[in-house]
Amino acid sequence: MKNKLQIDIPNELDGIGRLEPFQGAFTKLKKGWMEEETVPPPNKAKMPHASKMCANLKEAILKTKPYNGMTISFHHHLRGGDNLVYEAVKILADLGIKDITLAASSLTTAHDPILPYFKDGTITQVYASGVRGELGKAVAQGALEKPLVIHSHGGRVRSVHTGKIKIDLAILAASAADEEGNATGSHGPSAFGSMGYAAIDSWYARQVIVVTDNIVDYPCVPQSITQNYIDYVVKVDSIGDPSKIAGGTTRITRAPMDLQIARLAAQVIEKSGELKDGFSFQVGAGGASLAVAKYIRKIMKQRSIKGSFLLGGVTSYGVVMLNEGLFRSIFDVQSFDAAVSSSLLNNTYHIEIPAGLYANPFNCGCMTNKLDVVVLGALEIDTNFNVNVITGSEGYVRGASGGHSDTASGANLTVVVCPSFRGRIPIVKEKVHTVVTPGESIDVLVTERGICVNPARPELKANLEAGGIKVKDIKDLAVEVEKITGKAKPIETTDRIVGIVEYRDGTVIDVIRQVAE
Amino acid sequence: MKNKLQIDIPNELDGIGRLEPFQGAFTKLKKGWMEEETVPPPNKAKMPHASKMCANLKEAILKTKPYNGMTISFHHHLRGGDNLVYEAVKILADLGIKDITLAASSLTTAHDPILPYFKDGTITQVYASGVRGELGKAVAQGALEKPLVIHSHGGRVRSVHTGKIKIDLAILAASAADEEGNATGSHGPSAFGSMGYAAIDSWYARQVIVVTDNIVDYPCVPQSITQNYIDYVVKVDSIGDPSKIAGGTTRITRAPMDLQIARLAAQVIEKSGELKDGFSFQVGAGGASLAVAKYIRKIMKQRSIKGSFLLGGVTSYGVVMLNEGLFRSIFDVQSFDAAVSSSLLNNTYHIEIPAGLYANPFNCGCMTNKLDVVVLGALEIDTNFNVNVITGSEGYVRGASGGHSDTASGANLTVVVCPSFRGRIPIVKEKVHTVVTPGESIDVLVTERGICVNPARPELKANLEAGGIKVKDIKDLAVEVEKITGKAKPIETTDRIVGIVEYRDGTVIDVIRQVAE
Repeated sequence: MKNKLQIDIPNELDGIGRLEPFQGAFTKLKKGWMEEETVPPPNKAKMPHASKMCANLKEAILKTKPYNGMTISFHHHLRGGDNLVYEAVKILADLGIKDITLAASSLTTAHDPILPYFKDGTITQVYASGVRGELGKAVAQGALEKPLVIHSHGGRVRSVHTGKIKIDLAILAASAADEEGNATGSHGPSAFGSMGYAAIDSWYARQVIVVTDNIVDYPCVPQSITQNYIDYVVKVDSIGDPSKIAGGTTRITRAPMDLQIARLAAQVIEKSGELKDGFSFQVGAGGASLAVAKYIRKIMKQRSIKGSFLLGGVTSYGVVMLNEGLFRSIFDVQSFDAAVSSSLLNNTYHIEIPAGLYANPFNCGCMTNKLDVVVLGALEIDTNFNVNVITGSEGYVRGASGGHSDTASGANLTVVVCPSFRGRIPIVKEKVHTVVTPGESIDVLVTERGICVNPARPELKANLEAGGIKVKDIKDLAVEVEKITGKAKPIETTDRIVGIVEYRDGTVIDVIRQVAE
Repeated sequence: MKNKLQIDIPNELDGIGRLEPFQGAFTKLKKGWMEEETVPPPNKAKMPHASKMCANLKEAILKTKPYNGMTISFHHHLRGGDNLVYEAVKILADLGIKDITLAASSLTTAHDPILPYFKDGTITQVYASGVRGELGKAVAQGALEKPLVIHSHGGRVRSVHTGKIKIDLAILAASAADEEGNATGSHGPSAFGSMGYAAIDSWYARQVIVVTDNIVDYPCVPQSITQNYIDYVVKVDSIGDPSKIAGGTTRITRAPMDLQIARLAAQVIEKSGELKDGFSFQVGAGGASLAVAKYIRKIMKQRSIKGSFLLGGVTSYGVVMLNEGLFRSIFDVQSFDAAVSSSLLNNTYHIEIPAGLYANPFNCGCMTNKLDVVVLGALEIDTNFNVNVITGSEGYVRGASGGHSDTASGANLTVVVCPSFRGRIPIVKEKVHTVVTPGESIDVLVTERGICVNPARPELKANLEAGGIKVKDIKDLAVEVEKITGKAKPIETTDRIVGIVEYRDGTVIDVIRQVAE
């Protein structure tokens, strides 16, 4: 069967089951409820004054009685500094546990060390928002027995609610926790900020272990995760390296071309009419996206505009804007650098939110639904505005769906910023290798070679042109790029599907095929 | 069948279904999980930027499409000042809706105005922690078609999780809310403090309306209730009268006998060995209970003891102790006077908690499980230490289960304080009219005529006696009381069961029979 983007989606896939093709960003939402049944959360019981403390992670894992075929989950708030996934998987592998489904909220290059466990049958399936580095390459080369499932941050919550991801054991790193498992990421030597992705795991996992390098006096305050969901607590020497939370994708670029694109994007936002009092704003990680905030800040100051909220992955730059009074509040599902933690801890208007409140499409209104403007990056964008943020030019998995499709669908104005080509590789092109966010959710593309407006938004085009911004047809831009880079050589793949890209509503927007090497 | 207390419990009851007899405080918990299946929470969907605002409560209620046989729910945080239950029930009654189940977290005398709807078939069943005043009398007289179900605060959460209470429409008063339904009780002209009982309703109700007299700029901070659970928002002129939150049961007594009992109870706590650094403490509402805090405060200061947390219904007196550094934190499921709100709003260590975290027995550890000492009141207590806090001497329903059995089962030391008789009515007696909390959960009874220790706690008796406290056999005390008051005339009832008292685990600990008049 073909989905709405005319991409072939198999009816069924071994290791996943029946697939439903993507039918449009709002097709399933318009009904006002989710047709798929949700699953009941577990209800455990504990005797009064029973201790949850374990001597070490192995003891805690043994207490949960691990077994072949189990699903384990982690959050990725320590990003490039995470140590826990490897530690836990190694313990399970040493215990001889096989056929594990790894349901991390995302995987980074910090997780390269678990590669051997992809190859020896310890881990046979992965659910994640993103996979990068050696793992992403291995997945594309067919290392996993069952297909990878890429989900958005909002989609992951839906998957857990519906039992598509059925977590047997969640192992949650915290930078501070007490003996009962009340936990936070907002203070302690390894502070990493929000624990937004971990909330759903704590609510739904059959068993939950909190791992910290910093046991504090009862009660741990704030309680990002509360004790009534926690089975065991473990003190370890280190949960990771918070200095590695901020990586390449979470710092404001200094590259002149990215800054130029960011400046243009800020102009687009200004002329769109969305930049007014009460305005809400999110910028994605990476490249030019974060830099847009820099120019928006300048315009807001010049025009004395006071915004409502900043959303998303939060950087120190966002905190500066909050402290300057440019925004009334920050909703923080993920902190992009360790410095954000102290604001999250001390400023009542810097609010930690769970991923479901951030972006799950199936509730009474996630935060992304309330966004005015989002600025997002792209690895590729096609002439129908479909965006790839997951596979690289060799066909390897090297990115993350993240909140891309969540925010793109919710925001009044969705701006994609990217260079039109990188090296000799076209970014704007006729067809992307993998679609993560459908073109219908993208309003405008800003590149160094021109600005393109989705034809579905003629009023936006008119506003921009009235504001003196030149708008270019995306097809013309693609042709222009192709003249410079030459026609991109398509990535050669086998027929084997090694991954699917789930849209946030659970339908399949694209598949990832094994690279032919 | 007979339950563990040898009380006859029918196998089944019209309007409720199969009943399970109480088998002991921990019988169902020891397994480590709940056998009864939980129900999945609803998953709705909302289109981006859709408005939730309604012109008035009637419009909001009409949008939820009310129908005969529905279950509606409310929190009781405005206690004696609540106006919303009446307003909402009147709208439903005027619309001709019949056979409503009213699942309020508790009902007070402020709800007397809904009495006509008990009698005309608008409301045919009530689930609540407590019923008082005209309603409690009417229930005991048989006004409701189906039996009243009395639950504890923790048990209510379990009931919602298991679908025993299936809320169709939750109508939640807030003292501040924004256009998306983020809401709090901690500020605004009608501030009432914690919204702890409302959380479970917001998560599980098929539809949720937030009603406020104080719409604030987006976002409302703090978000005691979050927008992803809220369908509609209504601004009304007044949600009630917060000056009536504090009532007779939530002020520290000035009655000399109550103060004497409280002073004795504080001595008992001190000599028990529980009053030490890291100590956690809860006092129930009413009579001598609150006054115990006064003496505990004095002892803690004298002995430089620093406690861990105060729990429960929180009074201004608790806030004073927090501010004096006598306790590290307060966990607040319910604020007993409006003055508590500003502490809840401004002090990070004054923490709002949902009722599930407070007291639901079926999770990984509620707060009541972590309690060292609780002081509770009683309407009656029998020679097996079974406590009645629900029916009065005429057999009318006039109290509340509240957190009584929750805290009693969890605390290391459970102290009941009450006079041994009131007027000519014995309080300590051979058999109470209705059991709410089983004697196995009560460690010591403190009255003006003596202190009695549960024979199951010989080490406690030894500690007290070693501390110079005289301990009396409860049977001797009952005989002594009977000599003064004369034998209590048993309350005459018919065979008709008009209510059941659920133990926190869902079993039935007692039934309430219609009074014969």
